[in-house]
Amino acid sequence: MSVSIAQYRQRVPALQNKAYFNYGGQGPMVEAALAAIHSAHQTIQTRGPFGSKVYQWMRAEGVETRRMLADDLGVSPQTLALTENVTVGCNIALWGLPWRSGDHILLSDCEHPGIIATVQELQRRYGIEFSIFPHLSQLNSADPVSTIQAHLRPTTRLLVISHILWNTGQVLPLKAICQLCHERPQPVRVLSDSAQSVGMLPLQLAKTGVDFYAFTGHKWYCGPAGLGGLYVRPEAMAELSPTYIGWRGITLGTEGQPTGWEPDARRYEVSTSNVALCSGLRVAIATHNDWGTTEERYFRICQLSSSLWGKLNSLRSVRCLLKSPPESGLVSFRIFQNGAPAPTLHQKLVVYLETRQFYLRTLLSPSCVRACTHYFTTESEIDRLIDAIEEFLQSHAW
Amino acid sequence: MSVSIAQYRQRVPALQNKAYFNYGGQGPMVEAALAAIHSAHQTIQTRGPFGSKVYQWMRAEGVETRRMLADDLGVSPQTLALTENVTVGCNIALWGLPWRSGDHILLSDCEHPGIIATVQELQRRYGIEFSIFPHLSQLNSADPVSTIQAHLRPTTRLLVISHILWNTGQVLPLKAICQLCHERPQPVRVLSDSAQSVGMLPLQLAKTGVDFYAFTGHKWYCGPAGLGGLYVRPEAMAELSPTYIGWRGITLGTEGQPTGWEPDARRYEVSTSNVALCSGLRVAIATHNDWGTTEERYFRICQLSSSLWGKLNSLRSVRCLLKSPPESGLVSFRIFQNGAPAPTLHQKLVVYLETRQFYLRTLLSPSCVRACTHYFTTESEIDRLIDAIEEFLQSHAW
Repeated sequence: MSVSIAQYRQRVPALQNKAYFNYGGQGPMVEAALAAIHSAHQTIQTRGPFGSKVYQWMRAEGVETRRMLADDLGVSPQTLALTENVTVGCNIALWGLPWRSGDHILLSDCEHPGIIATVQELQRRYGIEFSIFPHLSQLNSADPVSTIQAHLRPTTRLLVISHILWNTGQVLPLKAICQLCHERPQPVRVLSDSAQSVGMLPLQLAKTGVDFYAFTGHKWYCGPAGLGGLYVRPEAMAELSPTYIGWRGITLGTEGQPTGWEPDARRYEVSTSNVALCSGLRVAIATHNDWGTTEERYFRICQLSSSLWGKLNSLRSVRCLLKSPPESGLVSFRIFQNGAPAPTLHQKLVVYLETRQFYLRTLLSPSCVRACTHYFTTESEIDRLIDAIEEFLQSHAW
Repeated sequence: MSVSIAQYRQRVPALQNKAYFNYGGQGPMVEAALAAIHSAHQTIQTRGPFGSKVYQWMRAEGVETRRMLADDLGVSPQTLALTENVTVGCNIALWGLPWRSGDHILLSDCEHPGIIATVQELQRRYGIEFSIFPHLSQLNSADPVSTIQAHLRPTTRLLVISHILWNTGQVLPLKAICQLCHERPQPVRVLSDSAQSVGMLPLQLAKTGVDFYAFTGHKWYCGPAGLGGLYVRPEAMAELSPTYIGWRGITLGTEGQPTGWEPDARRYEVSTSNVALCSGLRVAIATHNDWGTTEERYFRICQLSSSLWGKLNSLRSVRCLLKSPPESGLVSFRIFQNGAPAPTLHQKLVVYLETRQFYLRTLLSPSCVRACTHYFTTESEIDRLIDAIEEFLQSHAW
């Protein structure tokens, strides 16, 4: 560890004026990542902005970024497409499969509304069916693998699950789920919405068997908004057609006519993006690696979220969603009033805290407040947060 | 004009070390636009990066950017969706229409390969048909309106044309074309790929009747790469469904479930983008407005492209594609060897010029070299370019 937590935090402008617990929404950037974006913009202007030399430089930026992400995800760079965000990655997978009327998609009841709305639109256009398996209602008891098994149908073609559920913070057993799905008589593809896992969990994606894994750089990696990616398992690539199409994904003949797709996952990339963001993301990841390995960071994230979970549960009228410490940096909790959760108090608490420079967010399903710990969260931040929540509860005593 | 051309050029880092003629590829940014992006990133970090106050600020950035673009395009802000680039805008229009087997799409033979590849994929998935009407082969003679009329079919549902053709630089008569299409017994929607027109032409889009108009901020506006937009005519919005879907386009119920689309064109926006790019684009546009109106800039662009066109045509063995001066800033020309165009010389010329700090590009269909003039191009730059081309031709004498 060539850099201490204190040193790391000093390099992050967002952490200088607040106690930040919204890593699951967006991660704060180190100054060096912001500077790298500005510097890349200047390089593009000085060498271009458009010309053959700067094009080679921009192409190399993409190669280098895919390579660094591939290392971290445990996959080959040829399986990665860069995207604007995690949702675009999910949409590429959802729209690119060869849907036929009657095909079935199974989703967990913890998926993001954007994903649900996309599946509803697929249903409208292609006559597919979808159903939602209950996970939330069995939050602290059920085994997700057997629940999924019980809800798969002979017509199921795709399972959509988050690797880490954005509301509860649970980590789903991705490998076991993929194995279950692939061993079906008619194999089921698995799309994982991985907004919360990349940058937090140590990953060896190729070993999990997951077919499509969409992620973003701007949450747990603490990179810039506007850059994410999609992993496509080599065995699934032939089945997944590009939908939104542009010059980055196609090959050209001598007269400039389209002749086919790029041989690797770049076929799912579309057109001009802001290449300067690549430098920012790589600096963000490199800075984390300077502190410790992914395993070390994940261990620290869980230490801190356990601590937060325990201290929240010790507050009167506060109860965490999970009955055991989360295996992620997401800690969701509810305030109880007259024995029932109190959504209006969740909203009030978050507003109250933000005016005092504590940043958390509410979620609607289930209604709760979510606090996130990163590896560079401090125990003192957690203690101050607990004090502030206690003050709020006292000022709203009933 | 509160700023002179010389003053403007001094503020553009890319223009300090080269003679730039690639505005149709990417426009160079003023220093203030680069600074605005950096400053917006810092604002996001200081106020967030995630929280209710910074979310309001980011939302206002979107509102302000759509408003400024709407002013420039002559449309209402409610008809504009922000996109990552022009290709995504085209894809939103192409994928969102209610295709049925046998529907026909008509395209010009000057459309971008990314668009052709998308239409081919629509053909594969939905059984639509498409055909390409000849424009290039009738470059200096035909009337595009009657050519289009001759190629429309009873089954045609969509016409795809560029407003300014990226290869020839011709401006198509958009209003007359839209009128023709809308007056058909079965009206034909018009999608315009407007990569080259926005930021160059004075536009009153609402008056043209165009249904879908996709554009980018990083070419003639000289804004950052990674931010563009799509105009959707109010009358066409109900027919165009969102395809890629995320939190920016949907409305939510009290339990966080999707309940429908945003009432305006934001329904076509997807998810997290780099909001800092909005500031950069607005500064870029405001800086142009400081120099002169869109009409004044367009007049100057055409003065300069006419001058370049005339001087290129005066070179032995060089011939411009158009027989009359272009009505845009795009000037494409060919080198002739033994009476025929010489593609290898086009490539060699561009490489030769870039090593001498003149930035142009080749195109493949038709094989040619393209030079662009912006309103801040100088006559002296043009003269130096002509000299450099002449030197090249002499060194490749035959």
